[in-house]
Amino acid sequence: MKALWLEDRRLRYRDDVDLPIDAAREARVRVLTGGICATDLALLDGLYPFQGVPGHEFVGIVEEGPAELAGKRVVGEINTACGACPECLADLSKHCRARTALGIRGRSGAFAEYLRLPAGNLHIVPDTVSNDAAVFTEPLAAALDVVERCGPASGERVLVLGVGRLGQLVCRALAAGGVHVVAAGRSAGKLARLEGVVAETVRAEAIEARAFAMAVECTGSPAGLPIALRALKPRGTLVLKSTYAGTSELDVTPLVVDELRVMGSRCGPFQAALRLLEQRRVDVESLIDARYALADGVEAFAHSRRPGVIKVVLDVGACPRQAIERPADGVS
Amino acid sequence: MKALWLEDRRLRYRDDVDLPIDAAREARVRVLTGGICATDLALLDGLYPFQGVPGHEFVGIVEEGPAELAGKRVVGEINTACGACPECLADLSKHCRARTALGIRGRSGAFAEYLRLPAGNLHIVPDTVSNDAAVFTEPLAAALDVVERCGPASGERVLVLGVGRLGQLVCRALAAGGVHVVAAGRSAGKLARLEGVVAETVRAEAIEARAFAMAVECTGSPAGLPIALRALKPRGTLVLKSTYAGTSELDVTPLVVDELRVMGSRCGPFQAALRLLEQRRVDVESLIDARYALADGVEAFAHSRRPGVIKVVLDVGACPRQAIERPADGVS
Repeated sequence: MKALWLEDRRLRYRDDVDLPIDAAREARVRVLTGGICATDLALLDGLYPFQGVPGHEFVGIVEEGPAELAGKRVVGEINTACGACPECLADLSKHCRARTALGIRGRSGAFAEYLRLPAGNLHIVPDTVSNDAAVFTEPLAAALDVVERCGPASGERVLVLGVGRLGQLVCRALAAGGVHVVAAGRSAGKLARLEGVVAETVRAEAIEARAFAMAVECTGSPAGLPIALRALKPRGTLVLKSTYAGTSELDVTPLVVDELRVMGSRCGPFQAALRLLEQRRVDVESLIDARYALADGVEAFAHSRRPGVIKVVLDVGACPRQAIERPADGVS
Repeated sequence: MKALWLEDRRLRYRDDVDLPIDAAREARVRVLTGGICATDLALLDGLYPFQGVPGHEFVGIVEEGPAELAGKRVVGEINTACGACPECLADLSKHCRARTALGIRGRSGAFAEYLRLPAGNLHIVPDTVSNDAAVFTEPLAAALDVVERCGPASGERVLVLGVGRLGQLVCRALAAGGVHVVAAGRSAGKLARLEGVVAETVRAEAIEARAFAMAVECTGSPAGLPIALRALKPRGTLVLKSTYAGTSELDVTPLVVDELRVMGSRCGPFQAALRLLEQRRVDVESLIDARYALADGVEAFAHSRRPGVIKVVLDVGACPRQAIERPADGVS
């Protein structure tokens, strides 16, 4: 099949990639649209030693799978679990030690004509949600984890540091939940995209010290951590969302003296994200700055790194929503 | 009055120190015994720019104060609050931004004949608790904060990394609460002091990776943080207890991917600590390795740094418990 291929920190377009044939329980999904995420760029920079088809944000059509999913438009949770390790048995299956992660770890990803995932990972997309909105389900769910798991106190101002791909969604998810969001970043252009969405925007240099009960670190840079910590009130909570290669300098003493909490947060609830999209409580489509054909994926990745750019999508299968009943011919 | 005096990272004994005269609401306490803590050593190393009398672990007799405290043997919470700043109004008075901390910040400390603290900071010591036990109230309370605020899940093994002054007390406090404690350290001698107290002891090099739902970092060293994080299961909690000058290298990505929590923990509940001591559920007196007269305080600090040493106390006022009714003559 046609796919982008990552190997030795280089990305290229190929038309001869085989989709690995997995266990019978895995559904085969024809990809319609894929979204390029900071993690994809980090993979290319060597964050993890992944070789294969990258991509984990997608919307597609189930071509092989259980009857209730066949022909349906779906998005998919990216981690698969073994069901037998201590983490799986402790109801932490997204932390399964034998897990694969779509396009990140041990599993061919979404920047291809087809992908495979266990049927249990797939969620049907409501008809009123466009492909361009649905492709944000995975990162929006990750943003919602801040709201759902870490529970910002009502009435408290919450600082979101970093207004790139992830920060934009975290701001939108928190604001949709009624939170007074203060978005902070370096890019005036990206901050401008949050006018009317969040309560306040502020340049990163002007963040008040010791002013927030909760902050969310979305910068994707080691420099963000100390800035976010300085912004916290005593007993405040910092939610870490961004991953990056390399380490941050952590001054432990103020963390102990001020009794701060730091919480890592990764994936989140797909159903809640789909609900928000269906109810149009979060605008995500305006975050798409460019779209490319799969064959131009290398250029799409480069575009994704340009300053001010939030989301670049790959149009993989040109399948309008109205045509989802028509099963495509087998490929690969 | 006689006191130890810290200035420009040097400690000396003086007999001409004035006890600052504070507001009328502050009680005057004649110090009986003081305990040397890692924070005192860190102050000497320049952790904070403190000049004056150090010392914050003490037991003493109230010589001036409200009727219900006069002549009583007491221990004292070390932070004072202004009562008017945003933190105080938010019920976070121990994080008061104008706070003083006994012998640490803006307040003459316990390694002297006398100290002053607001009466509300003082707790009467039950008669059955010896001076040598009572002097551990402050650090034992700090250890109990791990139990009370961070709430280890029952049945889970908890790793305590670091078996020095603080680690010994954290181990004892957790074990007294019925927790299965795995104590890890580098010193065979210090680990041996926990035999029969905790469920398991282990050399720091042999700590299992991804094995603990909760770990407590008590090493007092930047090297402890990454070791403790590696020991956590996904969604595990690391409680940071130790403060030190300098920064730690933090690898943020595993913290996010494994959704770990890091919580700073400082002071704790004095009444709960006194209860544990009164009920003899925690042995602390065996942790005293040496005792010195106040005049030999410089030597006591040096002794406190020797390998294998846990607690060195200063005998300031030679006042047996039976004599607490006798008010001492005014001094200073």
